[in-house]
Amino acid sequence: MSSSARPEPADAPAKRTGRRPGTPDTRGEILDAARQLLAERSPSGVTVRAVAARAGVDPALVHHYFGTKRSLFTAALELPFDPRMIVRSILDGPVAERGERMTRTFFGVWEDPSGREPFLALLRSALSAGSGAGLLAGFIQQVMLPLAEHEAGLDGRRVELAVSHLVGIAVLRYLIAVEPLASTPVEELVAAVAPSVQRYLAP
Amino acid sequence: MSSSARPEPADAPAKRTGRRPGTPDTRGEILDAARQLLAERSPSGVTVRAVAARAGVDPALVHHYFGTKRSLFTAALELPFDPRMIVRSILDGPVAERGERMTRTFFGVWEDPSGREPFLALLRSALSAGSGAGLLAGFIQQVMLPLAEHEAGLDGRRVELAVSHLVGIAVLRYLIAVEPLASTPVEELVAAVAPSVQRYLAP
Repeated sequence: MSSSARPEPADAPAKRTGRRPGTPDTRGEILDAARQLLAERSPSGVTVRAVAARAGVDPALVHHYFGTKRSLFTAALELPFDPRMIVRSILDGPVAERGERMTRTFFGVWEDPSGREPFLALLRSALSAGSGAGLLAGFIQQVMLPLAEHEAGLDGRRVELAVSHLVGIAVLRYLIAVEPLASTPVEELVAAVAPSVQRYLAP
Repeated sequence: MSSSARPEPADAPAKRTGRRPGTPDTRGEILDAARQLLAERSPSGVTVRAVAARAGVDPALVHHYFGTKRSLFTAALELPFDPRMIVRSILDGPVAERGERMTRTFFGVWEDPSGREPFLALLRSALSAGSGAGLLAGFIQQVMLPLAEHEAGLDGRRVELAVSHLVGIAVLRYLIAVEPLASTPVEELVAAVAPSVQRYLAP
């Protein structure tokens, strides 16, 4: 494991800032550094500065490639969609139907194999040895919560309680496939679960 | 891995049934066989007959040591309490407060380190490589569901939805410790979560 304040590589040419300039691989190296740090520490400890230090680049280069820290996290998580689109689709529309939209969106992602795989991997890695804990925690704390709090003024605790219900359903239905939940039609589940989720998402 | 229909051990004396009689280790061997099978297959495939075959004993001996299949599962899961007591404590008392009793019981177990450890292990093993999937699924399908269905006439799907919410909270609060949920006082969580759980447990 390299130290978090990696010095100038020995074979690099002399440079003004003492850090490597951007190369075709720099973007990928920044993503790798972000994933490493997310697996090692709590999300709040994964700063742009820390990611830049781990990747051996200037923090400005991280901003150049990814804009915000949130975008960097989203890219590092390799989700097959933009979580901002998801959150926006839940927040837009009548407040009274937020729970149903979030529940439908959740099942839409999980019932689609291309959506299910990255989330199953996220869940498995998070829950195995704790080494992936930062990835799932990062997704929730750095991507979902800021969007829900800043764009809808929702309480972080309540958003996480709504998320927890859906994470638990993912565990029982998709990961360990416990019956009768695993074979219950989606429409029945949406009808049963949406009101519970709505309780947390209403102001 | 021994075959599931293990024949008479070569060094055993001749016996009437062709299976080993009970020895001081027989109880432990039956438990080991149950745990092996629970890790390998879905809970419905873990029959007393299959456990007896794996342990190389007569099925009557399994009943002798453990009574019912449910008691065998409970012992195999090594829980620090009897889940029947838990379920009974939730079912007893006013129906309108079932959700609160279940939620309080859940936090009572998880906030107590001696209760948290076996459940964390259950969750981790279930969610890592799928190899422990049968253990958590076995706990839910073979211990919790029959009790809730037979003793309270509750619908299996709805009991599992209630359980899923609490499992998700265990993941977010205790396993990956996402903030602000991880440091929210228990009483606040009980007040917020109990009505959601109650929705599923009311007839």
